[in-house]
Amino acid sequence: MALWYDEVYNGSLRFGAKTIRTLFVGESPYQKVSVFETEALGKALMIDDLWMCAEGDEKTYHEMIAHTAMTTAKKSERVLIIGGGDGGTAREVLSYAHVKHVDMVEIDGMVVEACQKYLPEIGTAWDDPRLNVVIGDGIAWVNRQDLDPYDVILVDGSDPVGPAVGLFNLDFYKACNDRLSADGILVTQAESPRLFQDVHVALIKTLEEVFPVVSPYYQTIMIYAGGLWAWVYATKGTKHTEINDALMTFAEQRTEHYNRDIHLGAFATPNYIKRLLKA
Amino acid sequence: MALWYDEVYNGSLRFGAKTIRTLFVGESPYQKVSVFETEALGKALMIDDLWMCAEGDEKTYHEMIAHTAMTTAKKSERVLIIGGGDGGTAREVLSYAHVKHVDMVEIDGMVVEACQKYLPEIGTAWDDPRLNVVIGDGIAWVNRQDLDPYDVILVDGSDPVGPAVGLFNLDFYKACNDRLSADGILVTQAESPRLFQDVHVALIKTLEEVFPVVSPYYQTIMIYAGGLWAWVYATKGTKHTEINDALMTFAEQRTEHYNRDIHLGAFATPNYIKRLLKA
Repeated sequence: MALWYDEVYNGSLRFGAKTIRTLFVGESPYQKVSVFETEALGKALMIDDLWMCAEGDEKTYHEMIAHTAMTTAKKSERVLIIGGGDGGTAREVLSYAHVKHVDMVEIDGMVVEACQKYLPEIGTAWDDPRLNVVIGDGIAWVNRQDLDPYDVILVDGSDPVGPAVGLFNLDFYKACNDRLSADGILVTQAESPRLFQDVHVALIKTLEEVFPVVSPYYQTIMIYAGGLWAWVYATKGTKHTEINDALMTFAEQRTEHYNRDIHLGAFATPNYIKRLLKA
Repeated sequence: MALWYDEVYNGSLRFGAKTIRTLFVGESPYQKVSVFETEALGKALMIDDLWMCAEGDEKTYHEMIAHTAMTTAKKSERVLIIGGGDGGTAREVLSYAHVKHVDMVEIDGMVVEACQKYLPEIGTAWDDPRLNVVIGDGIAWVNRQDLDPYDVILVDGSDPVGPAVGLFNLDFYKACNDRLSADGILVTQAESPRLFQDVHVALIKTLEEVFPVVSPYYQTIMIYAGGLWAWVYATKGTKHTEINDALMTFAEQRTEHYNRDIHLGAFATPNYIKRLLKA
C-alpha cells in the first residue's frame, strides 16, 4: 500500500516521499532504521525518521564528501571513514586504484546489514578487499594510538543527536588530527547552513581550533532539510584549490554531479554564514 | 487552525509547511492564488498549489535572478521584468541608484494585489517612482515595436504550465533579444535541473539559438521542487565573469546570500547537465 513518509523539521516543515513498500524496519540499540522503496527516488534509508539517502539522490552527497578530499590530497593511500553505513562514501573512495586501505568505522551494525541487504545499488564496494568494515565507535577508534596514520579522514555521520553527537566536539577533531598523516585532509558533513545554522557555524569554529586550513563548502541535497547542505574541508596546510589534474580527470569521468567547477564553486560561502563567522 | 500545505511533485514527492492561518485565497482568470502564514518561513505565496516564495526563503531567489545581471551589465538604466508579481525582483533591481526605469509586466493582477496587501515585506519597492507596474501579457509586451531598448530583461515567470508556457519558446526569446540594447543581458528562471530536466535543457538549447553567450547557473531554493534551482544568463557578448567591482561591492553589502564567490560558483554546471547539453 502506498504511504507517505516525511522527514519533519521542527514540527513545521516536511519533505516526504510516497513509498511503494517498506523493505525493512528495525530498532537497533542506537536508533530506528527503515528502508523504503519510494516512487520517485527508488529505495531510500531513513534513520529515526530522517532521510539519510535514496538511490535517486545519493550521488551528489557521496561525491561531494569523497572527491573534494581525494582530488586534492597529496597522498590518499590510507583512508578512514567514520559512519558512512550505507557504503556510498566507501564506493567513491575505492573508485581510485591507488587507494590501498580503507577503514570504515560505523557504530550501528544494523545500518550496515540493512544497506548491504536492501540497498546494494548504493554500497557497491562491500566486497572490495581493500575495505575493512568495523562495527564500533568512531570516537574510540580515532583515540587509538596503535594505528598507522591516515591520509584522508571522512566523517560521514548523522545529525548531532543520538550516537553522532560526539562527532561535533573539539576532542574528537583533535584525535582525528592526531591520526592524520603530515599532509592529511579531513572532511566532515556539516549540516544545513539554513536550518541547523548554530551547529554548522559552531562546527566550523571548533575545527578552526584544530586545523590551520578550514573551509566550508556547500551543495544541494534534495532530500535533506533545507536543501542546501554543508561539509567542512580541514587540513594541515593543503588548500582546496590545489587540485591534482590527473585525479580530477579520473573523477570527472564517472561522477554524476561532481566536477572541477562544482568543486571550486562549492566553496562559495553565503553572505549570512560569512557574517556569522566574522561575528 | 494549523494545517499543512504541500507542493506535490508528480504525485510522489512533497514539500510542506505548517500554516498558522490562511491570509488569502482567490481564483484569478489564470490560476489559484493563496497566501499563508507559515510557522517556519513566515508568510508564503502559493500559485496553483506550488510554492512561489516565502518571507524566510525568498532572498536567495531574488538576489540570484537580479544581481547576476546587474553586477555584470555594462549599462542597466532601463530594466524589464516579466512576471515577478511578488515584487522581490523589482526590489533588488531598484536597490541600485543608477537604475532609471523598471517596467514590470505581470499577467495576473490578483498576484500583484495579494502580494501588495499580504506580503509587503517582500515587495518593498512598490512605491518607487522608477517602477512602472503593468498588468498585462509579457509576450505581447516584448513584441511591441515602440519601446526604448532595455539594458536588462529578467524573466521571473512561473512554471511552463498555465500562463507562463509561452515564456519557454523561441519566439519569445527572439522578441526579448530585439528589445535589448547592444550590451543587453537577459536572465530567465530555468526550473529544476533535477526534476524538470527536460524543460531546463530545452530552455538552454532554445536560448542558444538566439544569444551568442548562454550560461546556466544554479543555487539552492529550499521551497522549490528538487532543491536545486536554475537560471540562464544570456547576452550578446558579455560574460558572467565580467563583474563590475563597484556594483558588486554595493550589492554584497546588502545581500543576504549573494556575493562575488556565490556569483562565480553558481555557474558550475553539474556533470549530468553537461552531458545532456553535449548530447
